[in-house]
Amino acid sequence: MWQGLLRHYRSYLPLTDDTPLITLLEGNTPLIYAERLSDMLEAEVYFKFEGLNPTGSFKDRGMVMAVAKAMEEGSRTIMCASTGNTSASAAAYAARAGLRCIVLIPNKKIAVGKLAQAVIYGAEVIAIDGNFDQALKFVREITSSYPITLVNSVNPYRIEGQKTAAFEVCDALGEAPDILAIPVGNAGNIAAYWKGFKEYRERGKTDTLPKMWGFEAEGAAAITKGQVIEHPETVATAIRIGNPASWEKAAAAATESAGFIGMVSDEDILEAYRFMAAEEGVFAEPASAASVAGVLKQHREGKLQPGDRVVCVITGNGLKDPDTAIDAVSVTPKVVSGNLSEVLQAIGVERGDVDA
Amino acid sequence: MWQGLLRHYRSYLPLTDDTPLITLLEGNTPLIYAERLSDMLEAEVYFKFEGLNPTGSFKDRGMVMAVAKAMEEGSRTIMCASTGNTSASAAAYAARAGLRCIVLIPNKKIAVGKLAQAVIYGAEVIAIDGNFDQALKFVREITSSYPITLVNSVNPYRIEGQKTAAFEVCDALGEAPDILAIPVGNAGNIAAYWKGFKEYRERGKTDTLPKMWGFEAEGAAAITKGQVIEHPETVATAIRIGNPASWEKAAAAATESAGFIGMVSDEDILEAYRFMAAEEGVFAEPASAASVAGVLKQHREGKLQPGDRVVCVITGNGLKDPDTAIDAVSVTPKVVSGNLSEVLQAIGVERGDVDA
Repeated sequence: MWQGLLRHYRSYLPLTDDTPLITLLEGNTPLIYAERLSDMLEAEVYFKFEGLNPTGSFKDRGMVMAVAKAMEEGSRTIMCASTGNTSASAAAYAARAGLRCIVLIPNKKIAVGKLAQAVIYGAEVIAIDGNFDQALKFVREITSSYPITLVNSVNPYRIEGQKTAAFEVCDALGEAPDILAIPVGNAGNIAAYWKGFKEYRERGKTDTLPKMWGFEAEGAAAITKGQVIEHPETVATAIRIGNPASWEKAAAAATESAGFIGMVSDEDILEAYRFMAAEEGVFAEPASAASVAGVLKQHREGKLQPGDRVVCVITGNGLKDPDTAIDAVSVTPKVVSGNLSEVLQAIGVERGDVDA
Repeated sequence: MWQGLLRHYRSYLPLTDDTPLITLLEGNTPLIYAERLSDMLEAEVYFKFEGLNPTGSFKDRGMVMAVAKAMEEGSRTIMCASTGNTSASAAAYAARAGLRCIVLIPNKKIAVGKLAQAVIYGAEVIAIDGNFDQALKFVREITSSYPITLVNSVNPYRIEGQKTAAFEVCDALGEAPDILAIPVGNAGNIAAYWKGFKEYRERGKTDTLPKMWGFEAEGAAAITKGQVIEHPETVATAIRIGNPASWEKAAAAATESAGFIGMVSDEDILEAYRFMAAEEGVFAEPASAASVAGVLKQHREGKLQPGDRVVCVITGNGLKDPDTAIDAVSVTPKVVSGNLSEVLQAIGVERGDVDA
């Protein structure tokens, strides 16, 4: 049975005999065949549904590794700047490991719902008068002066854990896909997958490497546009980042793999988001839909080959962001008075809409 | 690799050559060792975390089976009365299968957030002037007169799919646990687990059977109290049911297994809910915490034996109900002005709280 990432991919990870093999049984996420999308694109398309990790996002892969190493190094406290998936994951693994978790956030536009997950896992949240960069700066200063471990993406173990998703894709398919499509925000995940694909090939587990297709949101497309975006804006909040921490590594992954990093509009993202749920039965975070939106765009531009085997990384669970779901569809139900004939009419039975 | 419930447990399910093996790769959920709880109780406690099913609850197990049989029988539309996990699951599998999904709900106290999931998966929601029982009555009438398949829990295939969770528990442990602790609302799930454990033993996969411990919420404890509750009330909305559909089967499971069905207070449920997140790193729906609250109560009353191997069923994902999380903990962050020394003070570094 599945015993978590650290045990399962032990020989591929920087573990020592002293690394505690903590786990919430992260990883082992489904690779779901996307039937309608495959038909539409005349390709073989899969969703790597990372939203089914323990805290609902791919961050758990890197966090279990970062927290295990923090414990090995004797740290009793971890710290990050984040209002989203990173803080939730950090808080959960800190709870698991018996560590203290401190989360620094900017004291403006705080969505209470986004914080709830970290707080219920027991994190201490401190809001500062400043923006995200300021919060991260404090975290870096504090963690460099005190025995507190920084678990933001600059923690090198994060990418080590995250690369295991590439292993799982190869294990499921028996080889690497032709194309790996992935949302790009802070750009660490595309770098992690690329590292994973390369390592699996080096170890002889696969023969080929995929083309890496990264997709930024248009309003936060720093890499695509080649410039820092001062005020990034997109509905895909998990990739609303104007100056990606792993910019160089991401660009290298695209170039080395003969892939690219491009961008998709919020409109395309929301269309893909609705399509995935209503046509494939997969409810993802808006940011996750960037990968599918990107593949659809490539298809429109004639850049997808018939038969291509494409894996779209679905980074987070749609349940993380119910507000976007409510905005994206008309949730208000049709109301009918309480008699059967009106219900039948509303259903359309009388019009024969149900083969009646 | 995991290919979903219908393929994996094919020989245990009522499938024919004509049953389409649809899947969202449901099942195969983690059995997480609960370290702190095990230490506290001097027992071996696991969480079967069903919140990591595709739509975030155990309902997906039964729904994949019900929808596959609906397709086999030529149905093009499924229908249910539900405002919660059932409608979300029905909508997702209908999307997957290309079927129409109609959800009937009572037109009062509609929490838009609860509906959002079903709607994003493409369900048509109709609100009637009446209560839940009235909605279910309409669903039964309509589905008995028109070629529309009812997928509420009276659909017999639901329990067939749900019993697979018992198989997975046995597969993970190598045998049945001593005790299976489970929340009881409509009471179908305890009946399904019991059926699963018995079938696995009949097939020679296991030698023993667990005691079934079912836990109702005190304000909806029909079985425990031996009477229908007209107006059930509990924070654990997923088990807020005053007249369980599978009452007899649940009572039989408790009796046959030398277990019981008891109740836990909302206070106990919320305490277990917070404990699970903050101490074990598992964020569950409030209803799910009834199993853990029940085990804690049994321990307090001296009814747990040292070394008992206990599996607590965690039926749904905490992300389904962010409002309860926000109410259960103080989400408002500590605010400090933007200078480093104040942040350090807030963290307690100056008091040596971080071994500094």
